Amino acid sequence: MAVYTEVTDDELSRLIADYGLGELLSYKGIAEGVENTNYMVHTSEGTFILTLYERRVDTRDLPFFLGLLEHLNQRGIRCPLPVHNKQGQVLSEISDRTAAVVTFLEGVWPRRPRAVHCTAVGQALAGLHLAGKDFAMKRTNALSLEGWHDLYDRIAARADEIARGLGDLIAYELAYLDRAWPRDLPSGVIHADLFPDNVFFIGENLSGLIDFYFACNDSWAYDLSICLNAWCFEPDFSFNATKSRALLAAYQAVRPLTAAERLAFPVLARGAALRFLLTRAHDWLHTDRNALVKPHDPNAYVRRLRFHQEVKSPSEYGLEAAS
Amino acid sequence: MAVYTEVTDDELSRLIADYGLGELLSYKGIAEGVENTNYMVHTSEGTFILTLYERRVDTRDLPFFLGLLEHLNQRGIRCPLPVHNKQGQVLSEISDRTAAVVTFLEGVWPRRPRAVHCTAVGQALAGLHLAGKDFAMKRTNALSLEGWHDLYDRIAARADEIARGLGDLIAYELAYLDRAWPRDLPSGVIHADLFPDNVFFIGENLSGLIDFYFACNDSWAYDLSICLNAWCFEPDFSFNATKSRALLAAYQAVRPLTAAERLAFPVLARGAALRFLLTRAHDWLHTDRNALVKPHDPNAYVRRLRFHQEVKSPSEYGLEAAS
Repeated sequence: MAVYTEVTDDELSRLIADYGLGELLSYKGIAEGVENTNYMVHTSEGTFILTLYERRVDTRDLPFFLGLLEHLNQRGIRCPLPVHNKQGQVLSEISDRTAAVVTFLEGVWPRRPRAVHCTAVGQALAGLHLAGKDFAMKRTNALSLEGWHDLYDRIAARADEIARGLGDLIAYELAYLDRAWPRDLPSGVIHADLFPDNVFFIGENLSGLIDFYFACNDSWAYDLSICLNAWCFEPDFSFNATKSRALLAAYQAVRPLTAAERLAFPVLARGAALRFLLTRAHDWLHTDRNALVKPHDPNAYVRRLRFHQEVKSPSEYGLEAAS
Repeated sequence: MAVYTEVTDDELSRLIADYGLGELLSYKGIAEGVENTNYMVHTSEGTFILTLYERRVDTRDLPFFLGLLEHLNQRGIRCPLPVHNKQGQVLSEISDRTAAVVTFLEGVWPRRPRAVHCTAVGQALAGLHLAGKDFAMKRTNALSLEGWHDLYDRIAARADEIARGLGDLIAYELAYLDRAWPRDLPSGVIHADLFPDNVFFIGENLSGLIDFYFACNDSWAYDLSICLNAWCFEPDFSFNATKSRALLAAYQAVRPLTAAERLAFPVLARGAALRFLLTRAHDWLHTDRNALVKPHDPNAYVRRLRFHQEVKSPSEYGLEAAS
């Protein structure tokens, strides 16, 4: 949670007018978002989110992210819609930052997801994958196998500060994934970070998806395996097969997995666990203990990785074995 | 800015239902408030602020603050209105904290106040003073002369870490105020912290007053002298006589100052400057440099105090001398 950059009322009034959003009524810095500064803005036209992209964000990626949101909105996916200013642009400058204004989505993210939420997420993820099929822009996944090696190189010397044997565990897993990682699965735009805090519900109804700042092109089933890691483990790290079956069945009701995807699923799940293990370990080692944003515990993903390493068959996730 | 305490969606849904506010649509922790945790909450009934009172707040004072907001609302003062739950109470428990829900006020606080804002504040402050006349509860001002002595005792040994000679300056001023502080001025409920960030505007129209957590019973003119300190100095610490005249004239158009109040005004202004100098100095010396909330610079009030010490007559503020 953080507001890194302040915005003055006069600057924001001018920006809101430039976006044709009427009169500024109120704005509050909100304690969400790790990378950027976000304000919730009430105007005479409605509620919006103003995002200021902080310096470590590569603004060259913004046209992909914001273009994707527009594309998905056009296809009925409920996600924030970027507003165009009077120059026809989605990006502006304010407080010496690049900024965008998007529509506000009502909804709350489930702190304790239940199977009903997993069903909704599976369905929404498949819908997202299909809706992204004809999106023209491409973005490479910087956090896939090659990126994992790079991350490991940066933390290897200190990995055991987090847990004894962690360096060896990661090295072993990378060697395994170098051999086993599937290369030709059905691919397209993926969200790549569809954790519970990025999925909004009103009651039990999914009201929208947010935070597309890791979106990229990669294997759809890999995106699903990220959700499995994010949604189907309990606070005590035990795997919840009921939630997994709910997630996978709902996804497949919209887009059935191919035989190759089902067969590869345990490998994908290992890769997804390693991906979050690596970024969390990196942040854990590189975040000032007094920082505004507390790093997530990497051990939650050590536990998930060890679970997936023991999986013998896709059926353990609730998938039939590939025929 | 800080969100100290997290609230889960399930807990908040129950609380919102208990307050009869319909269905929870969204909630965001907001980066405002130094003492407490605040969430902006959208429900099917409207927008509200949920405040969780953190442990260092004395909850015995809450009935005064919340009762005052209700009283002022009944008399047409635009300020947050506490919502009663189905048990008829304004206070609840959530996340192991005492909590209240109040209506949300639209408006933005002016980062660069102009004379037009000072006029609006003067008028609103006088209206607040008159509206509070028949409020039945009382609360002593813990931050008046006696409290200043206590604060000084706690920082005296280290005051010169902030600025050389600061300890002597405060001791001199306290000795002066012990002799000169007026005792029998017209009194009642005062806001006691009506800084720009507590006054909302839509365009140039004042839309509401917030943050009554320093409200207490004290001299009305002292409250006005707090506003003079807060609104009528420039970022370079120079006194802006135009803003001062605007503030004082607008106040007096609603409630004219008595001759005794006008005569005492320079002393009150010195006391008000010392009060914020002392609390800022205390916080400066006692706040961890890595804390979420950065302390305000005490020197801004050293500069104000030195200005007031040189004032020879109330006319320098734009008040006619007492006849």
